[in-house]
Amino acid sequence: MNLNGISTEAPKSLDKEATKKETQKLLQKLPELQNVMYAQDKYSLLVILQGVDASGKDGVVKAVFTGVNPLGCSVKSWKAPSSEEMEHDFLWRIHKEMPERGTIKIFNRSHYEDVLITRVEKWIDTDTANRRFAFINQFEKMVSEENNTIILKFYLHISKKEQKERLEERVTNPTKNWKSNPNDMLVNEKWQEYQEAYEDVFKNCNDIPWIIVPSDQNWYKEYIIAKKIVETLEQLDMKYPSLSN
Amino acid sequence: MNLNGISTEAPKSLDKEATKKETQKLLQKLPELQNVMYAQDKYSLLVILQGVDASGKDGVVKAVFTGVNPLGCSVKSWKAPSSEEMEHDFLWRIHKEMPERGTIKIFNRSHYEDVLITRVEKWIDTDTANRRFAFINQFEKMVSEENNTIILKFYLHISKKEQKERLEERVTNPTKNWKSNPNDMLVNEKWQEYQEAYEDVFKNCNDIPWIIVPSDQNWYKEYIIAKKIVETLEQLDMKYPSLSN
Repeated sequence: MNLNGISTEAPKSLDKEATKKETQKLLQKLPELQNVMYAQDKYSLLVILQGVDASGKDGVVKAVFTGVNPLGCSVKSWKAPSSEEMEHDFLWRIHKEMPERGTIKIFNRSHYEDVLITRVEKWIDTDTANRRFAFINQFEKMVSEENNTIILKFYLHISKKEQKERLEERVTNPTKNWKSNPNDMLVNEKWQEYQEAYEDVFKNCNDIPWIIVPSDQNWYKEYIIAKKIVETLEQLDMKYPSLSN
Repeated sequence: MNLNGISTEAPKSLDKEATKKETQKLLQKLPELQNVMYAQDKYSLLVILQGVDASGKDGVVKAVFTGVNPLGCSVKSWKAPSSEEMEHDFLWRIHKEMPERGTIKIFNRSHYEDVLITRVEKWIDTDTANRRFAFINQFEKMVSEENNTIILKFYLHISKKEQKERLEERVTNPTKNWKSNPNDMLVNEKWQEYQEAYEDVFKNCNDIPWIIVPSDQNWYKEYIIAKKIVETLEQLDMKYPSLSN
């Protein structure tokens, strides 16, 4: 897969205001779907959000999941591993955070960082990355089959230019300063390395398929993700358990 | 593998007192090996103890590991899963308890119960068992390769007659009453089902090999296990890290 060949923008024909209305209609269905999932206690949903810095992962969480009951829905934002986590295999901290049956878990970044930033920064070699690809596939298969965990993997696809503008805005916009980091621009300079690391992930870890989301415009990104989540949940055989069962 | 064809007793030629002395010599090496493992922080050791009820798993822990510094050595005794654990895949609670690098963890029972008692009691079918065999193999490979975890899997092999006598002794011996359970004798009646379930485990989960330990006599069981652990640790390239490294 060549990410350069995939547009980062919404289709020109799509009407922005109509799409935003459609997104709101989709999102109105989500709390009810989550409620029946919780009551039935059969399935769980893991939403993985990946993308380069400033691709809008936090924004997805806020826009898509704000109306969902936090009793059965939580977010795990993955940072650099702690010293305790470093004493274990890379999936140890991930496995602990997998969703309980009946609940939704959102991963803001994920175990894929162990084959992304680690490769760009050359902390691991290609052999290690290939080994991890296999372990990730097996791990995702295991939780899917053993615990009915539905895994949706979204890649927020933005352009290099869009990333640069957003990183610059973090400096100039006082409400976004807190997200700014002196190393931000180094990430933009490593753009091509990140794209290649992502392409390798999509090639090797697609047993559970990645969904590439054109993300330069937030309204389109939110529509695609909301649609995929709602449609996925609607296709499950979910129902409230009754006393007679 | 046919467990019936494997003796549960020590070789007749072996001298009991000489063997016990040999075991003590082996065990004197263990604290030092554990100390260098802890200091080097490169390897970890997982000792899995499996065997039918009254096969002497607790006895192994006491006899082999009593002289080891508990700072870097701990035991996890697995019971029936809690309601929280039941909300996850069967390896979730296991993965959490895997040893940190530099430490020894002893599993008294293990994830293998999820393909043993569960089969004997018919809580899972053969398809599920076969699926789990594959996931167990992948999981053990992953922790071995990703975190240098050495896994030693011991099966404490006793005879049906020996089990019956030990279970009866739990009733008559006041210091062993606390281990007694009204259902103990049901386990002895299910002897053949357990043997077959174990044979299926040895056939399907032997990528990391099982060590069948004739265990009717404690002194022989302890010797075999102590020898295997000490020899395994001695074969690793363990050394104290020096300041110049």
